[in-house]
Amino acid sequence: MKEVTSGDVLSLCKRRGYIYPAYEIYGGIAGLYDYGPLGTVLKENIVALWRRIYALQEGFVEIDGDNIGPEAVFKASGHVDSFADLSVTCKACGESYRADHLVQGLHPNPDSLSAAELQRLLRENDVRCPCNGELADVEEFNLMFKTRIGPGGGRIGYLRPETAQSIFVNYPNLYRYCREKLPFGCIQVGRGFRNEISPRQGVIRLREFNMMEAELFVDPEDKTWPRYEGIKGKQVRLVPNVTGEEVETTYGEAVEKGTIGNQTLAYFMWVTFDFLTSVGIDPVRLRFRQHLSTEMAHYAADCWDAEVLLSLGWTEVVGIADRGCWDLSRHMEHSKADLTAFKRYDEPQDVVRDAIRPKFGALGPRFKGAAGDIKKQLEGMDASAVHDGKVTVKVDGQDLELDGEYFEVVQVQEKETGVRVVPHVIEPSHGLDRILYACLEHAYGEKEDGYLTLGLKPLVAPIKVGVFPLMAKDGMEVVAQALDLALREEGIATYYDDSGSIGRRYARMDEAGTPWCVTVDYDTLEQGDVTIRDRDTAEQVRVSADDVVAFVKERLKRKLSP
Amino acid sequence: MKEVTSGDVLSLCKRRGYIYPAYEIYGGIAGLYDYGPLGTVLKENIVALWRRIYALQEGFVEIDGDNIGPEAVFKASGHVDSFADLSVTCKACGESYRADHLVQGLHPNPDSLSAAELQRLLRENDVRCPCNGELADVEEFNLMFKTRIGPGGGRIGYLRPETAQSIFVNYPNLYRYCREKLPFGCIQVGRGFRNEISPRQGVIRLREFNMMEAELFVDPEDKTWPRYEGIKGKQVRLVPNVTGEEVETTYGEAVEKGTIGNQTLAYFMWVTFDFLTSVGIDPVRLRFRQHLSTEMAHYAADCWDAEVLLSLGWTEVVGIADRGCWDLSRHMEHSKADLTAFKRYDEPQDVVRDAIRPKFGALGPRFKGAAGDIKKQLEGMDASAVHDGKVTVKVDGQDLELDGEYFEVVQVQEKETGVRVVPHVIEPSHGLDRILYACLEHAYGEKEDGYLTLGLKPLVAPIKVGVFPLMAKDGMEVVAQALDLALREEGIATYYDDSGSIGRRYARMDEAGTPWCVTVDYDTLEQGDVTIRDRDTAEQVRVSADDVVAFVKERLKRKLSP
Repeated sequence: MKEVTSGDVLSLCKRRGYIYPAYEIYGGIAGLYDYGPLGTVLKENIVALWRRIYALQEGFVEIDGDNIGPEAVFKASGHVDSFADLSVTCKACGESYRADHLVQGLHPNPDSLSAAELQRLLRENDVRCPCNGELADVEEFNLMFKTRIGPGGGRIGYLRPETAQSIFVNYPNLYRYCREKLPFGCIQVGRGFRNEISPRQGVIRLREFNMMEAELFVDPEDKTWPRYEGIKGKQVRLVPNVTGEEVETTYGEAVEKGTIGNQTLAYFMWVTFDFLTSVGIDPVRLRFRQHLSTEMAHYAADCWDAEVLLSLGWTEVVGIADRGCWDLSRHMEHSKADLTAFKRYDEPQDVVRDAIRPKFGALGPRFKGAAGDIKKQLEGMDASAVHDGKVTVKVDGQDLELDGEYFEVVQVQEKETGVRVVPHVIEPSHGLDRILYACLEHAYGEKEDGYLTLGLKPLVAPIKVGVFPLMAKDGMEVVAQALDLALREEGIATYYDDSGSIGRRYARMDEAGTPWCVTVDYDTLEQGDVTIRDRDTAEQVRVSADDVVAFVKERLKRKLSP
Repeated sequence: MKEVTSGDVLSLCKRRGYIYPAYEIYGGIAGLYDYGPLGTVLKENIVALWRRIYALQEGFVEIDGDNIGPEAVFKASGHVDSFADLSVTCKACGESYRADHLVQGLHPNPDSLSAAELQRLLRENDVRCPCNGELADVEEFNLMFKTRIGPGGGRIGYLRPETAQSIFVNYPNLYRYCREKLPFGCIQVGRGFRNEISPRQGVIRLREFNMMEAELFVDPEDKTWPRYEGIKGKQVRLVPNVTGEEVETTYGEAVEKGTIGNQTLAYFMWVTFDFLTSVGIDPVRLRFRQHLSTEMAHYAADCWDAEVLLSLGWTEVVGIADRGCWDLSRHMEHSKADLTAFKRYDEPQDVVRDAIRPKFGALGPRFKGAAGDIKKQLEGMDASAVHDGKVTVKVDGQDLELDGEYFEVVQVQEKETGVRVVPHVIEPSHGLDRILYACLEHAYGEKEDGYLTLGLKPLVAPIKVGVFPLMAKDGMEVVAQALDLALREEGIATYYDDSGSIGRRYARMDEAGTPWCVTVDYDTLEQGDVTIRDRDTAEQVRVSADDVVAFVKERLKRKLSP
């Protein structure tokens, strides 16, 4: 096998209909790609497996939110203020660059530098544009696509930079749907948008991309996980941030040592491993790397990236973060909505507190008709509302101070049934395009003679079966068409092909990643059996035509785990 | 049954987790809705059935293009210049309205009026804002969301107003993928965006919406369809534009009379009918209305809307248009790319044409080294290039006129194997949100006692089976959980519920649209059978627990048609 480059993969992708550069007839746009016929189905199949795991196995609900959102949401999430890259523009040719990309080799960790530090580094080293032009000052560039909603200037809106915010702002609806109990989880599959300064690297860095995000809302004081027991003995390859060295360990050991923060995080790292290897990522080229504290997003308490080794180097494809209470707290603060969960105690608890008791005998004569309302206000207060022996109430919209003549502070004993908490969020966030690309690169096989095979897992392969009559005559085409229909009836995607030699038809299916080819020949007409040829072994078996559907279905089964 | 209003439906939708107003904690935005847990799965199930019909039954390929596109694409498609509504703004309160909405009742067909006509009508009738403020002049408002791609001002981009353009600009890739043969079809499921002036009517008029579009590329001279024979005898309810009267006829009769333009259009009208009734739209409340010529989009040669009768009146949910060669011709013109198909003749044809034959004896001595290139240019020309006995060639980038000394016009006889044509496009375009909403409204049942049932078709119902242990004890919960898992293993969505009375659990599932509920009781522990209760009939049958999966799967089957 030859070593593969991303150029090889993208070239096959274009030829076979997996991925096309977008708007190519108009010269294309950097960072935008379209999925072709095979890419679209591959993507759907990956999503289907992911949904099977998260919805059917783990019991998450799913929502589908809007791509456009109002400014208030992204003010709260922090994206308006801090979702930016540092950019420099060439004074001569006008081309823009990410400033940190221009100082690679001049600093070990350029994306941790501030604008001023980058500016200094560029100046000191007299870095210029490839056109030799002088660079302007480093500027901050917000990565959200901005638009306006409604006529006449409208209000500011943005294309969401991640799907997660749609889930957070729907928290009250989801909490109700999930019958007001923690933990509960919600997934979403959809687009995210980042107006990258100068995107390269094919589908790895896109301006419009596909995400699969899961947000699990948990009790802040309980990050254990019931099904953790089933996975804690499994092996995992970690790169913890304290050492930066790759280690082989078990999830259980890593949680016990505190390397992985809690059971829930560990469990979903395992779910991620299981998912990624099921769609075809080579487990030998897969590891989890912990974010450095300097690298951690503003909201994250702990974060592990699932990294896949590609021809471009180790590449993040999934981030599994403990976001703490950041998101819900921020949205509570900005929207004033109640985004808490009620944590019921096992037994009601006796609590003693200082309460305010109104003296109605004094309030009545003075405030007449308003006395009842004032009484209610006082009863709703806590003793902490008393300052210098006085409390403030509202009468006819005006503040009014009352002194000890009108109330007293008393100790009361009450039953408390529970407490309101802001849930913490554990988030496995998947870059779908990167996962799809990694599947393709790990499946790519080129022999020395240039013959190509895409060894995609049957579960995700867009075409499951190539159906060929040896020749389109003598009734072979009738049998082949009937077989093709029988497979499609069962939801199995086929490719019917009756042109060219069987060898050429096999080769076309190998490049497309089709795991099985079925040929109807003269023997079929007499004996009722067909040839099934396996893509990876090139082995051929004779199977009764009536058993082909069952043969394929059997091999596409996958149990729910663990 | 009480008569249903869209308010009733949206209220149930919110309570049960089908549809939520988007960004509600921030006050919401008109024209934006999110799908909740049940709505998302209902949507996926509708899409899955549609894909089954278009991809597995009809053999269309599928692509997935970008939401953001460059200006050039929408210049070519006509959207930059003519995708606009006429708007008026109140001078007092600043609210904007669609001008045609303000003159309803003053004109039989307000959306056919020009800006000047609307202006006159508003003035003459002294139409004012509901706040009684004076209205400003009627203005054109482009309905595309505009943004900028890339740093430093970037280039203008738009959010696509329809998914179709992604398919048209990918035509060269798709034509190659489909092995350069007509007809071929391509589908896409994705978002569309229209910056509506003042959206109302819930999910019927959205600023961000979901579409399922199919583009079928056909030979302009052959709009017959092989499978038309199978459907031409079927009944259809039409409202042709010449009479405006509803008629019951057959597809075959309508094509013969020229009411429906061609077989392909008729076939996909039938496919649309089959699809819509399969997802649960009441066939009695479904018809096809032909666009009036004044109403037809700039690109359409003929167009039929599938209209569904809702509480809001007859509402378009699918448009099936013959777009002619509009789209590909425009993109050819604007991009200069070749968007034709090669139509091979059955037999090569002898053609006689006037060709230019270079006189090399004269060219050689005069042009020396350039003579060979000039000869090639002349050979590539047609006799139509000769003007006043001269032709123009390029020598060293300069135009040069040659007279008869250097060439002659001769008649040649050639074999022509085929001809290049610009394919026509037949487009069934589906408003997914409207279809989903129509399913909900037609499924909505409210008894006089206020008891609600959503009678969704099992194929699209988000939860297929409610699984209940009679009580969560004595091992009933163990059997129920095992049954729940067995269903999920087969990809069947369940709702496990062990709280409250069985009656309340049934009621919850009825409101959610769940077709079957399975109860595990004490008898199950002894005899191994369970109760399956039907949502629509409330009938209960006893079935062996081992047969529940097969019971459900049998009822979710659907054959490919016709």
